[in-house]
Amino acid sequence: MSDYPSILLEQAVNQMASLPGVGKRTALRLVLHLLRRSDAEVEAFSGAFTRLKSDVIYCRECHNISDTEICPICASTRRDHTTICVVENVQDVMSIENTGQYNGVYHVLGGIISPMEGIGPKDIEIDSLIERVSKGETKEIILALPTTMEGDTTNFYIYRRIQNTDRFADRIQTGELRISQIARGVAVGNQLEYTDEITLGRSIVNRTDFKA
Amino acid sequence: MSDYPSILLEQAVNQMASLPGVGKRTALRLVLHLLRRSDAEVEAFSGAFTRLKSDVIYCRECHNISDTEICPICASTRRDHTTICVVENVQDVMSIENTGQYNGVYHVLGGIISPMEGIGPKDIEIDSLIERVSKGETKEIILALPTTMEGDTTNFYIYRRIQNTDRFADRIQTGELRISQIARGVAVGNQLEYTDEITLGRSIVNRTDFKA
Repeated sequence: MSDYPSILLEQAVNQMASLPGVGKRTALRLVLHLLRRSDAEVEAFSGAFTRLKSDVIYCRECHNISDTEICPICASTRRDHTTICVVENVQDVMSIENTGQYNGVYHVLGGIISPMEGIGPKDIEIDSLIERVSKGETKEIILALPTTMEGDTTNFYIYRRIQNTDRFADRIQTGELRISQIARGVAVGNQLEYTDEITLGRSIVNRTDFKA
Repeated sequence: MSDYPSILLEQAVNQMASLPGVGKRTALRLVLHLLRRSDAEVEAFSGAFTRLKSDVIYCRECHNISDTEICPICASTRRDHTTICVVENVQDVMSIENTGQYNGVYHVLGGIISPMEGIGPKDIEIDSLIERVSKGETKEIILALPTTMEGDTTNFYIYRRIQNTDRFADRIQTGELRISQIARGVAVGNQLEYTDEITLGRSIVNRTDFKA
């Protein structure tokens, strides 16, 4: 598809196709779909993105997207503020919240360390995590990053940063501060024969006591 | 996925998910991708759609999307203005132009007759087509609508409208005006055993002389 009959159409298609996973053909279809809507509807569509970009706030505590200086989770007195779950991004917070299994607070790194993509420790919210833990209230840091090489690297970096800080190392020694990571193993409902070898191997090495 | 950490985020996700084929999860991913861009880039993204909607022009002759009152195809003196190819939408014009096989002009109906979707002859650009043909220059009308029931219905409606107009009927009789439709048959490169029975059956009934 080329030779658009209108430059305005071409520009709109190019913008739509700039989104990840959206090809030129799909973009054209979506743009022509938008064009059939009313002026007010197109205004609402476009406005939602500019408004989000200009007015969005990142929570001062956990760096999650928020409408307020302190997000509802960090502001809640019913949450356990001594447990911090470290995640890569906003989606991860939403996913963990949806499980209904977690009552602590979060720390959104906004990325993970990736030398390949040129993302170093200074590019993500690690310093602010260390600062948060420095306040002394934290009893547990749960590392809930992707189980990939980048995730493991970031886990290790955070662990080392905390270990290398004397007052944290002492608290880890005395058990006042725990650093944990999400359980890895065979996903619930999966057949062993379809589980990859690395996961299966580790799930045997890292077996846990059977609880009846 | 529910319980967005921000109303602005939720609104942006809902707008993105209002596009056909875009689910909530994909929409969230796309919106968070946008959010990582600069203010100017998000502005350019949103602006492209509102600008298209407010400034787009439909060609006065063929009703294709255009930047000018008369689109480049209708304005071209190198195109054959006596042949009008009737298509459903803008994409069809682009597809036919890409074949490089057509040098006439177009007429974009902006839809096809569909009782199921409540689209009647008055909702699409049929009157303007009849008016165009009335000017007396037209020698051929090529019906290039989808080979579906709706397409066939629209083809038949247009044919009848033209037949029922006395001066057109006379010109069809004398061969001054031809109404044709795109060839239907086995697609080039297809195996007969994988061609559906209706297409294959019709391709035998409507066989053409072999040209060596």
